[in-house]
Amino acid sequence: MTLKLISFKLCPFVQRSIITLLEKKLDFEIAYIDLKQKPDWFLDISPLGKVPLLQLDELVLFESSAINEYLDEAYAPRLHPADLLLRAQNRAWIEIANQLSAAQFKLAMAQQVIAAEAAQNQLTILFQQLEGKLGTGPFFNGSTFALVDACFAPFFTRQLLIDKHLKPVLTSCFSKTTAYGEQLLARESVANSVVADYQQIYLERLIDQGSWILGQSD
Amino acid sequence: MTLKLISFKLCPFVQRSIITLLEKKLDFEIAYIDLKQKPDWFLDISPLGKVPLLQLDELVLFESSAINEYLDEAYAPRLHPADLLLRAQNRAWIEIANQLSAAQFKLAMAQQVIAAEAAQNQLTILFQQLEGKLGTGPFFNGSTFALVDACFAPFFTRQLLIDKHLKPVLTSCFSKTTAYGEQLLARESVANSVVADYQQIYLERLIDQGSWILGQSD
Repeated sequence: MTLKLISFKLCPFVQRSIITLLEKKLDFEIAYIDLKQKPDWFLDISPLGKVPLLQLDELVLFESSAINEYLDEAYAPRLHPADLLLRAQNRAWIEIANQLSAAQFKLAMAQQVIAAEAAQNQLTILFQQLEGKLGTGPFFNGSTFALVDACFAPFFTRQLLIDKHLKPVLTSCFSKTTAYGEQLLARESVANSVVADYQQIYLERLIDQGSWILGQSD
Repeated sequence: MTLKLISFKLCPFVQRSIITLLEKKLDFEIAYIDLKQKPDWFLDISPLGKVPLLQLDELVLFESSAINEYLDEAYAPRLHPADLLLRAQNRAWIEIANQLSAAQFKLAMAQQVIAAEAAQNQLTILFQQLEGKLGTGPFFNGSTFALVDACFAPFFTRQLLIDKHLKPVLTSCFSKTTAYGEQLLARESVANSVVADYQQIYLERLIDQGSWILGQSD
């Protein structure tokens, strides 16, 4: 079966699927589309016009979490923990990762200080939760990289770029969270999960938006 | 292991878990809290102050979808389909159920016609998707009740009450969706998944809110 992801280059959710595919050493293709000008063939197969999609020969899966759960069930090695309760907790914390990415997007897209501060407050509350949950690492559950790690990693890929402009850096008070982010970014599958010119494209997106963040580095 | 759900009486997400527990004929307890005055013990165990929670002896699970996936993996009969691709599609459509419940909440809480119409437009787009997906029924996948049905059902429980006030009824153009809702509401587990005075409490909530919907029945 041919695996083909359809997304756009800056999407944190497709990045989770790419990490999952790389961890499982699977062959796959990616088609990047322009979300501002969605092609007709894309709208025909995406129920809500959202990315990512996973195309499996004639069949199309939508919804990031459903795609990742499918990849994890269908292809070894299993990334979710075998223990049912631990797996359930991991799934719950993937929702925290979703909220981190949502708050980070609000921060990146904020044009005014009020919106930016509200997003930073949301991020701080989530960091407090994550900091209280993390153990000695290097990964969420300890020594083994899991699907929950693939879901947190794209947040840190972006936060690394945001932190070049923010003073003080938001995670600076959260030592376990900082260390966790560093471990994730050092992982080969995470490093290889974005396009080569990712940093440049992300910066251009912030400039296009008139992002408040960029003014902080003056 | 004692299973105890913690939620509030009108939450559509805890209703999904109750349906799942009833389908599996499991013994469980429910503690209802007042979300306007969250007790301290609740805030101590809920990372984000959200419901539902599932308490298993000393352990607490949060996040509705993680709770339902856990219940389905831990207790027979399995409600998710055995086929991996069908299961993935069901999980993706649970996200459509989430969006239906979110748009329905916006409609119910709208105090002005503009907000109400925006919510109704969102609902109509989602109904179009669902109508195109549903087969001959009675359930989402055909003859067998699945976890995806437990996730769609709470939407229809509320829509039945909303439809008493709306003219025309939103689902009236969508015959498969209407029939699907009727099949779900006739299911014993769905009928028994809300408190006895549910309709009265929901109506009081709409009155408290000054909901635009109530003015439509004059």
